[in-house]
Amino acid sequence: MTPHGTVQTPAFMNVATCGAIKGAVSAIDLKKLKCQVQLCNTYHLHLRPGDEVVRKLGGLRRFTRWDGPLLTDSGGFQVFSLAKLRNISEEGVTFASHIDGHKLFMGPEESMQIQSNLGSTIAMAFDECVKNPAGYDYAKASCERTIRWLGRSKAEMDRLNRLPDTLNPKQMLFGINQGSTYEDLRVSCMRRIREFDLDGYAIGGLAVGESAEVMYHIIETVEPEMPKDKPRYLMGVGTPDNILESVRRGIDLFDCVLPTRNARHGNAFTRDGCRNLFNAKYILDDQPLDPSCGCPVCRNYSRAYLHHLLKSGEMLGMRLCVMHNIYFYNTLFERIRSSLDCGRFSEFYRDNLERLGQRI
Amino acid sequence: MTPHGTVQTPAFMNVATCGAIKGAVSAIDLKKLKCQVQLCNTYHLHLRPGDEVVRKLGGLRRFTRWDGPLLTDSGGFQVFSLAKLRNISEEGVTFASHIDGHKLFMGPEESMQIQSNLGSTIAMAFDECVKNPAGYDYAKASCERTIRWLGRSKAEMDRLNRLPDTLNPKQMLFGINQGSTYEDLRVSCMRRIREFDLDGYAIGGLAVGESAEVMYHIIETVEPEMPKDKPRYLMGVGTPDNILESVRRGIDLFDCVLPTRNARHGNAFTRDGCRNLFNAKYILDDQPLDPSCGCPVCRNYSRAYLHHLLKSGEMLGMRLCVMHNIYFYNTLFERIRSSLDCGRFSEFYRDNLERLGQRI
Repeated sequence: MTPHGTVQTPAFMNVATCGAIKGAVSAIDLKKLKCQVQLCNTYHLHLRPGDEVVRKLGGLRRFTRWDGPLLTDSGGFQVFSLAKLRNISEEGVTFASHIDGHKLFMGPEESMQIQSNLGSTIAMAFDECVKNPAGYDYAKASCERTIRWLGRSKAEMDRLNRLPDTLNPKQMLFGINQGSTYEDLRVSCMRRIREFDLDGYAIGGLAVGESAEVMYHIIETVEPEMPKDKPRYLMGVGTPDNILESVRRGIDLFDCVLPTRNARHGNAFTRDGCRNLFNAKYILDDQPLDPSCGCPVCRNYSRAYLHHLLKSGEMLGMRLCVMHNIYFYNTLFERIRSSLDCGRFSEFYRDNLERLGQRI
Repeated sequence: MTPHGTVQTPAFMNVATCGAIKGAVSAIDLKKLKCQVQLCNTYHLHLRPGDEVVRKLGGLRRFTRWDGPLLTDSGGFQVFSLAKLRNISEEGVTFASHIDGHKLFMGPEESMQIQSNLGSTIAMAFDECVKNPAGYDYAKASCERTIRWLGRSKAEMDRLNRLPDTLNPKQMLFGINQGSTYEDLRVSCMRRIREFDLDGYAIGGLAVGESAEVMYHIIETVEPEMPKDKPRYLMGVGTPDNILESVRRGIDLFDCVLPTRNARHGNAFTRDGCRNLFNAKYILDDQPLDPSCGCPVCRNYSRAYLHHLLKSGEMLGMRLCVMHNIYFYNTLFERIRSSLDCGRFSEFYRDNLERLGQRI
């Protein structure tokens, strides 16, 4: 339940980095693709068009014409992964824009101010996402700073939500668990951040270099420490099998660029596994991409047409594949929810885990 | 009236070169954008995916999911403008594919066979499109060869239409008037090709180097020689003012890549002139692209959002601009038809000619 509508969990949040899904898919298209939550990237929108611009235009939801719940990340992940010449201090991070090298500063207060200007439903606390493997001492120091930044994020968001001209006075804030692959750091971090009584809690710093087994182990370690009545969000994950494994371990929310990025390279997800539509075997294949899929692409077009569009470099090929993959992810979650509702998730998990990972 | 539906004229044919409108717009989208006829390029589709492939998949209309009338060009224009190492003889043209340099031959029979495999509603006769200015002797010899090629095109199309397994036994054939900018060649060509009793007649070889005034003069010269009861198609034209001037001179059908190509560079047509959405003045402009336009883009998005998408290199920016321009062209023709229906075309022409050409 959010100020901008209810989200059925577990749910996938569809990534519209710069305020649009890559592959020419609009927020209005997303509605037809069963999307519940649109996710936009604070760092990108701060650089272009600028969060002050978005604010003047009524916020991101109005700007992109997405009327459902919208989550913005904190910008931290992109500052650490995309921007150049970073310099990190207790205050925050000084960095150079990846677009024009322009020098910028972002700390918890700036991140909250930007997200407040964007007017998202859910803001994320400003954190440092440490790549794995990381040394214990660095991971510990970084995690402690992230906890201090959470305090500052919360105080600033509370202040911003009370301003008379704020776009969304009920903007929610999620905290982020860090601690690399170290169980003790993860557990102590989770215990401390749950004290802040936030609207939800995320596990960050996974799927950034460690194996899937380590990731699942960290989820299992942290999960018992997460509040039972708040959404649990695993950031930046993942493949269909990652998702099944994580739902099984208690995760409610996910986001990932995988469905859109894979689609742009012709990789389409189906219930039986993954197909690459660039493959020459589809030249004369008149079947829908996935005959069991109800998406607008599978209801209308053939594999042969998609193959032709991709080979010809037609943007329409990318658009159709992206639409299919988005629908696939959102309906995978729909199927997961049904299986949970009727108490048959373990069967669903067993039946689908291996199949979804296949190349067909 | 065609075997695949009626076309209200004057009409604009929307160019889907490789079987898709450039800018991620599908044939299904075209229906919502008031498109009456989809045009596809024979040369491109012969090279990729191959017309035999399209035939096996049920023809272009089924392949692209366009259920209305579809026109294919002859391939001649692209052979002469895109392909490399051309060698022209009485038989036809030997050329190298612009994709991989592969050597190919196309004459009137090959062009008809390809178009028959594509199963279009209307095929175009195989011609040579001579760039302007051209020497009189070359233009005359080329024009005479084009007329001989028309005889062969017609004979081959008649033969193909009688084959038991042809995709469209009622495939129509349009002849093409050539003769560069020479009045006598244009008139004698028209008199000779109308003898063939074809389904329609096109004026080719215009908008290829000569001034607009020369183009209008040639239309005026040829038009009285064109059959009154057959559609008249001006190939590859043009801007909104070119269209008004040409409708005034009796033209029924047009095609042009201008609306889609301009859109991909942020140039949008409106009733008051042309806007470039890359312009910084749109950063905070919350109005629709054209407040008087009823297209899905103007009904939903702001200039500021379109500007942001284009500046960010998001494919969605191109898609939305292409959709708007296609709708603009198709509704410009709708407005032209209404004005003709109520006998007010001269007023419509006078009121709109200058306005449409403005930069705003």
